[in-house]
Amino acid sequence: MKIASDLKKETVNSGQRTQYRNFPMVPRVIFGAGSFSQLGDILAPMRNGPQAPFIFLVDDYFENPGFVQRVPLGSNDEIIFISAKEEPKTGQVDALVTMIQNKYGETPSGIIGIGGGTLLDLAKAVAILLNNKGAAKDYQGWDLVHSPAIYHVGVPTISGTGAEVSRTTVLLGPEKKLGINSDYTTYDQVLLDPDLTKTVPKEQWFYTGMDCYIHCVESLTGTYLNAFSQSYGEKAMELCQEVFLGDIPPQESRDKLMMASWHGGMSIAYSQVGIAHAMSYGLSYRLGIKHGLGNCLVFQHLGEFYPEGVALFEKMAQKHGIELPQGICAELSQEDIDIMVNVSMGLDALWENALGKDWRKQIDARTLGSMFRKI
Amino acid sequence: MKIASDLKKETVNSGQRTQYRNFPMVPRVIFGAGSFSQLGDILAPMRNGPQAPFIFLVDDYFENPGFVQRVPLGSNDEIIFISAKEEPKTGQVDALVTMIQNKYGETPSGIIGIGGGTLLDLAKAVAILLNNKGAAKDYQGWDLVHSPAIYHVGVPTISGTGAEVSRTTVLLGPEKKLGINSDYTTYDQVLLDPDLTKTVPKEQWFYTGMDCYIHCVESLTGTYLNAFSQSYGEKAMELCQEVFLGDIPPQESRDKLMMASWHGGMSIAYSQVGIAHAMSYGLSYRLGIKHGLGNCLVFQHLGEFYPEGVALFEKMAQKHGIELPQGICAELSQEDIDIMVNVSMGLDALWENALGKDWRKQIDARTLGSMFRKI
Repeated sequence: MKIASDLKKETVNSGQRTQYRNFPMVPRVIFGAGSFSQLGDILAPMRNGPQAPFIFLVDDYFENPGFVQRVPLGSNDEIIFISAKEEPKTGQVDALVTMIQNKYGETPSGIIGIGGGTLLDLAKAVAILLNNKGAAKDYQGWDLVHSPAIYHVGVPTISGTGAEVSRTTVLLGPEKKLGINSDYTTYDQVLLDPDLTKTVPKEQWFYTGMDCYIHCVESLTGTYLNAFSQSYGEKAMELCQEVFLGDIPPQESRDKLMMASWHGGMSIAYSQVGIAHAMSYGLSYRLGIKHGLGNCLVFQHLGEFYPEGVALFEKMAQKHGIELPQGICAELSQEDIDIMVNVSMGLDALWENALGKDWRKQIDARTLGSMFRKI
Repeated sequence: MKIASDLKKETVNSGQRTQYRNFPMVPRVIFGAGSFSQLGDILAPMRNGPQAPFIFLVDDYFENPGFVQRVPLGSNDEIIFISAKEEPKTGQVDALVTMIQNKYGETPSGIIGIGGGTLLDLAKAVAILLNNKGAAKDYQGWDLVHSPAIYHVGVPTISGTGAEVSRTTVLLGPEKKLGINSDYTTYDQVLLDPDLTKTVPKEQWFYTGMDCYIHCVESLTGTYLNAFSQSYGEKAMELCQEVFLGDIPPQESRDKLMMASWHGGMSIAYSQVGIAHAMSYGLSYRLGIKHGLGNCLVFQHLGEFYPEGVALFEKMAQKHGIELPQGICAELSQEDIDIMVNVSMGLDALWENALGKDWRKQIDARTLGSMFRKI
């Protein structure tokens, strides 16, 4: 399990602040309510002949005739429905790649991921592995991908993770949970249709939206901040507040949360997250709690570090009648707590971003353990 | 002269609002004060062998040993200094392309434009023409470019135009002033180093910054606005106000104006400009006034249409002691005024964005003529 070093390498401006990241942006984006109906027009010129299919990886939440009818399927194309209940795994990527290679004589024309963070990450990984030999686990790390991924398109159906703009796809492998971080990971095309988020259940909407909100709090209060990151982070923060504290019409709310996720993802690309993510990773590692909920469970107790951010978070949760599970860590053994503490404290860059270079003087294992106990 | 239709086609959401533009974004960006020193590292992997040079097109403002020393020149590379006093021309593009083709046996590895809007537009056009036969004027229009441009990098040295993110390069041709609008026009790489804007003269800083500010006013008050455009436009507007009305340190000011230009350019990509740009085009066509100044000359008289925007503009100009030239159109012949009115009123989309579909009921040639007379 190398999760500790996963986020460390995401640091850009640590140390001497002389080297800046050359960041890959999504080269093509379409935004608008109903824009999903243009997906066929977008894909058509990218088709490499009739034998090279488009493969649509779709959250099985959408496995119904009404949705299938809207997918622009050519005669040789395929929809594969996938559950997003669990995190994406390297073995799952390998199985999909093998299945696609065995079934089709030609490399597909493209992979289209339709869903939340899990589906968006799976589609990125499959697109990479279809053009790079070996197993998905071989590419977990930084810049290990040497051939471009095949054409891949991201279509988020829930807003908040920022996976639609990131250059990573985080996978659970046999030995480690680690991203395939590369310039080839980033989507070639993103389609942002806020109408696709109409049917997101309320709790999931809140938890995933809070992923974006917490990105902003951690980025904007961090020591790694620069003007690039700040401008995106401030805008995403404003949008989150309009969505979760304002009283705006539903369509405007969907539009704005989708843009918040987009800008929030751009913001952390050039800065870093902080304590909530460090602790949430510990929590997820030990208890398998999904990322959005894990962030919320942790963040509510971080008033000491993010006083304004936590106060606003409480207002948001209250406004939407969100009641978080209680006492999750109260009964855990000391060994479990130690494991979570170790995973969290291994994420140096996150702590340094939050507390500065001397962060180890401000936080120790015992303090952090008691912070976990409160959850 | 087909300037009238130039901006018309930039419209996205007019009419039934059912078709959205699939917008090409700059696929790679680096931001940071001093990041210019990383240009060599960025270019190195893009070099196509020792005989294929990088050609740097640089504003001749930077023609001094101190700057030349900082350009990462390989032995076969070349800097061409170009004056930005006049707008870029199709003939100038053709001459540069011919010169480069005659001098080098191979297609260059890339073109790097370093300067303001004029240099950024020239570099885009040269990169296109080096990989597309014929003359630059043949490609003025929409999506007439069929082969990708060669690798091209934009390095702005003044902030405001948004040329670093746009998919056009506006050129003055023998018959028309029109952009080469294509998905291949957009830069492959942009380097945003706010330190490069340290030496911009104050008036130029103000006029070019106001190009961004006016983009925001026109985009945000327009009828074409959507959540994508709005989020970028609002952020750019906030940044402009911090820069031109706040009291922030010089480095922060440079950082923020560079980000304002970036976000402002993204905003108009998904909406449209308005009356100031419509009139400014008329003014430039007849009198050759440069775009930034032209916008300011017009905008100060548009309080009826943009009351808040103009009030803020006046505060900004006052704060920085900017005195705009007076009486420019007072003595013009009626024929000259008619020409400017005709050019302006031909820009349907800009007027529709500003005033709605029935804009012709709200503005006529006589009214517009008297508006020009005030300038």
